[in-house]
Amino acid sequence: MKSEKLLFVMVVLTAATLFSFHPFKPKKVVFFGDSITQAGVGPGGYITMMKEILEKAGKGADYELIGAGIGGNKIYDLYLRYEEDVLAKNPDVVVIFVGVNDVWHKAGAGTGTDADKFTKFYTTLVKKLQDKGISVILCTPAAIGERTDFSNQQDGDLNYYAGIIRKLAGELNCKLIDLRKEFLAYNLANNPENKDRGILTTDRVHLNEKGNRFVAELMLKGLGI
Amino acid sequence: MKSEKLLFVMVVLTAATLFSFHPFKPKKVVFFGDSITQAGVGPGGYITMMKEILEKAGKGADYELIGAGIGGNKIYDLYLRYEEDVLAKNPDVVVIFVGVNDVWHKAGAGTGTDADKFTKFYTTLVKKLQDKGISVILCTPAAIGERTDFSNQQDGDLNYYAGIIRKLAGELNCKLIDLRKEFLAYNLANNPENKDRGILTTDRVHLNEKGNRFVAELMLKGLGI
Amino acid sequence: MKSEKLLFVMVVLTAATLFSFHPFKPKKVVFFGDSITQAGVGPGGYITMMKEILEKAGKGADYELIGAGIGGNKIYDLYLRYEEDVLAKNPDVVVIFVGVNDVWHKAGAGTGTDADKFTKFYTTLVKKLQDKGISVILCTPAAIGERTDFSNQQDGDLNYYAGIIRKLAGELNCKLIDLRKEFLAYNLANNPENKDRGILTTDRVHLNEKGNRFVAELMLKGLGI
Amino acid sequence: MKSEKLLFVMVVLTAATLFSFHPFKPKKVVFFGDSITQAGVGPGGYITMMKEILEKAGKGADYELIGAGIGGNKIYDLYLRYEEDVLAKNPDVVVIFVGVNDVWHKAGAGTGTDADKFTKFYTTLVKKLQDKGISVILCTPAAIGERTDFSNQQDGDLNYYAGIIRKLAGELNCKLIDLRKEFLAYNLANNPENKDRGILTTDRVHLNEKGNRFVAELMLKGLGI
Repeated sequence: MKSEKLLFVMVVLTAATLFSFHPFKPKKVVFFGDSITQAGVGPGGYITMMKEILEKAGKGADYELIGAGIGGNKIYDLYLRYEEDVLAKNPDVVVIFVGVNDVWHKAGAGTGTDADKFTKFYTTLVKKLQDKGISVILCTPAAIGERTDFSNQQDGDLNYYAGIIRKLAGELNCKLIDLRKEFLAYNLANNPENKDRGILTTDRVHLNEKGNRFVAELMLKGLGI
Repeated sequence: MKSEKLLFVMVVLTAATLFSFHPFKPKKVVFFGDSITQAGVGPGGYITMMKEILEKAGKGADYELIGAGIGGNKIYDLYLRYEEDVLAKNPDVVVIFVGVNDVWHKAGAGTGTDADKFTKFYTTLVKKLQDKGISVILCTPAAIGERTDFSNQQDGDLNYYAGIIRKLAGELNCKLIDLRKEFLAYNLANNPENKDRGILTTDRVHLNEKGNRFVAELMLKGLGI
Repeated sequence: MKSEKLLFVMVVLTAATLFSFHPFKPKKVVFFGDSITQAGVGPGGYITMMKEILEKAGKGADYELIGAGIGGNKIYDLYLRYEEDVLAKNPDVVVIFVGVNDVWHKAGAGTGTDADKFTKFYTTLVKKLQDKGISVILCTPAAIGERTDFSNQQDGDLNYYAGIIRKLAGELNCKLIDLRKEFLAYNLANNPENKDRGILTTDRVHLNEKGNRFVAELMLKGLGI
Repeated sequence: MKSEKLLFVMVVLTAATLFSFHPFKPKKVVFFGDSITQAGVGPGGYITMMKEILEKAGKGADYELIGAGIGGNKIYDLYLRYEEDVLAKNPDVVVIFVGVNDVWHKAGAGTGTDADKFTKFYTTLVKKLQDKGISVILCTPAAIGERTDFSNQQDGDLNYYAGIIRKLAGELNCKLIDLRKEFLAYNLANNPENKDRGILTTDRVHLNEKGNRFVAELMLKGLGI
């Protein structure tokens, strides 16, 4: 039965070899966005927090979370750099978290994004990612001001753009993380003085410690973790 | 019969005296505002409708309703012309109906009014009118878009300015006609498709036939008629 | 010596009469404007410099220079406060130095001033001052950016508003201090690198030390001193 | 010498074959731009005029001129569609004529393009075209208003963006058609009343008959025809 022994050894070796060539591969998730996501990888940022939460849960090795946020980015800026900053990283999942600047910069610099063009660039971007087999998750922009009575200057416009993203999620078969809805709910419960900042944001837009934690949790839930 | 004659003469004289000292004088109301009020005195306008309603109710002679609206006016434009266009008419009541352009023109021409200056001019105007013994009634701006989910582009800002006016009404002891609140309530009941125009406005801002009727009724109610 | 006594009495009386009818009164000049003028009364400000120059020339007692500048003011803000801040001071001369914010705030807050309303408020203000016998001097707004090739973002609009003021000076018979023209000439000679700040301004708008000195000299010249 | 004869016949046939496979091919030029170029292919449009001029000169078959203009397009809109609308047509030359909306829409919709992003998208677009061996020609945006004293509202900004394009032409080794410079020169000679429209444009931006002719001639010259 020497040959059987040999066969056994060969099978074991082959298996070992196969495993060594197909090792466990963590799920790679790219967070694609603006300054909120750029800060997300810093100390206390929402991506950093997600990593910490995963570590504590013993799932640290299961996921590779990559931040791809650049301050001031709008949807068309993401489109300009998605090849180098997203595709080049071969992600399994891309979370698109953009829209604040597309609205915000209308006031101020006068360089926001028209709603029809926002829709066009967003759609094209998602399709280009999906064409590569990437699972794409969409987020609504959380806030430009935290007042709960819709009296933040750009609430109307931000609601409108959030609505566009919700609709696109349905049309493009993407999971949706509705940060705007969640932020409003949180503020309705925790912002009795109707302040415009200081609850989840430092400055009406960028996340404070609680805001980063809140987004980290919503992102993990949205990723089904 | 000398005494009867005398009595008759006395009665006549007394009556004449009474009438000459207390002649019938209609209550004079000036509507002070922008293009919505300018159109208000045209055919089908809300002031024209108020007059028709009063006529039908047999109260046509009790009130003199005067339109003092000029297209494009903001709060500071009212301040520039209140002497000639309001004080010169010696009104009993002034209804201030302004604020749409103060918000609307931020987008577009970039010539809206800062909230702090809106408050300052508004306050000064009301006080100058009150100093003359005029009763001043304030109106919130009705709408820049009729969608009911607060996704009209400038809803946030318009809500904020409506809030300023509500607060001023309290501080300055003025009656308030809360058109914005009433328009939203009407649209919630009558705009199931969430359209941005065509319910009470023709173009998101200016009143259609129903809008003029709605405002006419709210104004009459606000005037206590 | 009766006649000597008489003479003495006459001299005394004459002197008293002269002094009572022709007391020495410095010429009172109010500088009415925005943050540039507000800073003008601070250390190193253009009004402070004018005072120092007059002192050195031994004319310190001939003029009373009063700053009435408030940051962020536009033409209609001046109109709102001209009674308390200008008329109440009984000036002989008022120098109006405004216009930067009327243009500047179109970009940014979206709260600039329409050209037709700028003209209207400016005209009304000048006439109200002239009606009180005040001599009114107009200034063009100096700069929003110091590049000399008309590539500062709002050069076109600022040129247009400067043109309005030049025209008004003619129509309303006011002396003109054409700061915009003078600033451009200075920069053409002294700004070879086409920088947008740092020549006469610190930040494209507000005056540095040289800018304050330059304006002080132009103001003195404009006042005919 | 039979073989020589055969050789000769073969050579002739081969030559004929070669020529039949490499027929004369007109030079293909794509004009890539906004509404001005979209109108350029209509009756009286500048591209239509170029074709007519070439026909008259007997060069109609030498060039294929293709319009690829879409109303409202900014530099990033060109970037979104350059593959389908330009590369797919295999042009020899691409004339990029864009920039008006990038500046214009800052006022109005508040959706212009920041200068740094304008530069970034423009650069990337030119390089992508050059990578395909296409000769790229740049145009400065002609006008938003025809006044010659730089008092058109957005002259400053438009001058700045024209400057960016001039610089890019140098850096990227592209021929430049400096429409802005030419339009100003034309207006200085032909617009003595300093009108803001009606000389080369109908509405400050879009070309009238003379404007289309002027651009047609400048384009032909720029193309070296």
